Amino acid sequence: MTPSDANTLSSQVNAYQLRQLIRQGEFTCNTSGYASGYVQGNVVILPKDWAGDFLQFCQLNPKPCPLIAMSANAGDFTLPELGQDIDIRTDVPGYRLFEQGNLTQEPTDIKSLWREDLVTFILGCSFSFEEALIADGLEIRNITENKNVPMYHTNIACKRAGRFSGDTVVSMRPMLAKDAIRAIQICSRFPAVHGAPIHFGSPEHIGIENIDSPDYGDAVTIKAHEVPVFWACGVTPQLVLAQTKPPFCITHSPGKMLVTDISNSSLAIL
Amino acid sequence: MTPSDANTLSSQVNAYQLRQLIRQGEFTCNTSGYASGYVQGNVVILPKDWAGDFLQFCQLNPKPCPLIAMSANAGDFTLPELGQDIDIRTDVPGYRLFEQGNLTQEPTDIKSLWREDLVTFILGCSFSFEEALIADGLEIRNITENKNVPMYHTNIACKRAGRFSGDTVVSMRPMLAKDAIRAIQICSRFPAVHGAPIHFGSPEHIGIENIDSPDYGDAVTIKAHEVPVFWACGVTPQLVLAQTKPPFCITHSPGKMLVTDISNSSLAIL
Repeated sequence: MTPSDANTLSSQVNAYQLRQLIRQGEFTCNTSGYASGYVQGNVVILPKDWAGDFLQFCQLNPKPCPLIAMSANAGDFTLPELGQDIDIRTDVPGYRLFEQGNLTQEPTDIKSLWREDLVTFILGCSFSFEEALIADGLEIRNITENKNVPMYHTNIACKRAGRFSGDTVVSMRPMLAKDAIRAIQICSRFPAVHGAPIHFGSPEHIGIENIDSPDYGDAVTIKAHEVPVFWACGVTPQLVLAQTKPPFCITHSPGKMLVTDISNSSLAIL
Repeated sequence: MTPSDANTLSSQVNAYQLRQLIRQGEFTCNTSGYASGYVQGNVVILPKDWAGDFLQFCQLNPKPCPLIAMSANAGDFTLPELGQDIDIRTDVPGYRLFEQGNLTQEPTDIKSLWREDLVTFILGCSFSFEEALIADGLEIRNITENKNVPMYHTNIACKRAGRFSGDTVVSMRPMLAKDAIRAIQICSRFPAVHGAPIHFGSPEHIGIENIDSPDYGDAVTIKAHEVPVFWACGVTPQLVLAQTKPPFCITHSPGKMLVTDISNSSLAIL
């Protein structure tokens, strides 16, 4: 399936069906907008001797690294609590292999790379809370403007866990104050997908020098009377991994997520 | 009991005991800080032919006018759901009588003013949510600085109900953004005591010209990196009543509230 074919794929295709298409190599696009209503996850796969530190890093930094599942045992490529028949080696549209922190391959499956010592981590992503905000009638500027959400390095240090440390990366969505208050209420219900924002207002208070020049993604319009609202972002663990340089690490390709059978609403704690 | 005697009153005196002292004329001070942990309420007493409009006004404007109880029938001076043996004619340390919108008396009981057509409304007050914020470790600047909370007229119109209309009055507490986010979470649990803030940041966006010159209460220090956070305020109905000028209306004197037997925590919806 080419990207233009993908555009004609029914939005009614369910998560299981989409994973089957991905596994068969018939869907290699970004997953945003597909299987709407279902959780999509960031993927991190590490050797067992690095997995303990990373698990602790997630536990200590749940806002940038909200862990929604991990493999039961090293070498196990299934994730039964996230969906029917998931095979993490084949069911993601694109992968990235990092060796010593260097991007060395971008395969569409990792069967040939699989090892018996690999541990899989799935982290929640902002798609879930964006859906909840839109359902409440709030505008998400990056979606309205058809851009990638702007993301920024901050000076907010994550808590160190073993070999892993680094600063928090945030995503930003501009809103009127009254909408930001509502967004805080809604996102507080979803700690598994980054939870409530961690800052609003002055970017320089968290070490962002130029709001119009994001470190990742695209700048978006900030209208009169709007304030930038900042959420902890799933790029944080990717940056920490790039800095820590484990000898072997596989992630999803940006935008090409694991699509699960878990409904977004089931993540709500309230 | 004089104010200096009141200062020596045990903070362990319970709400019922405090109301008994008030009824006997032995406590005529502000109630802030007494019977801590228990809901204190704003009092509005109106003739029956104005009560319907006021009830609707509260229903339409729950953030400035969170109704926690009203008398079961006109002429009834008890409020059994709020506490043991409450007599609204005697159990508030100070009252104000407004006739045609003019303050004409400030009695310490209203037995001689009581009429068979009077309906009592009790509205939640900010003491309850301030207690919840302090319990969470947040600083409330007006308390730290031993001042009355600063309050401001805004351009946020209340919804009209019959003869009642007017703009929202807000109270302001300065906070760091991260603390404001936490305050929004905590206050969202307490819709019966004004609920979540309605604005933060630029005062001019809600019609406040000078944050250092509140319309009521005292200015407080706004420190570097703090933003003003604005809550709908119980002065709103008092202003609306003053503008609407019913022929007869009794309220509590500012700061001299009805102390109830309802715990603040019991108002939490989550």
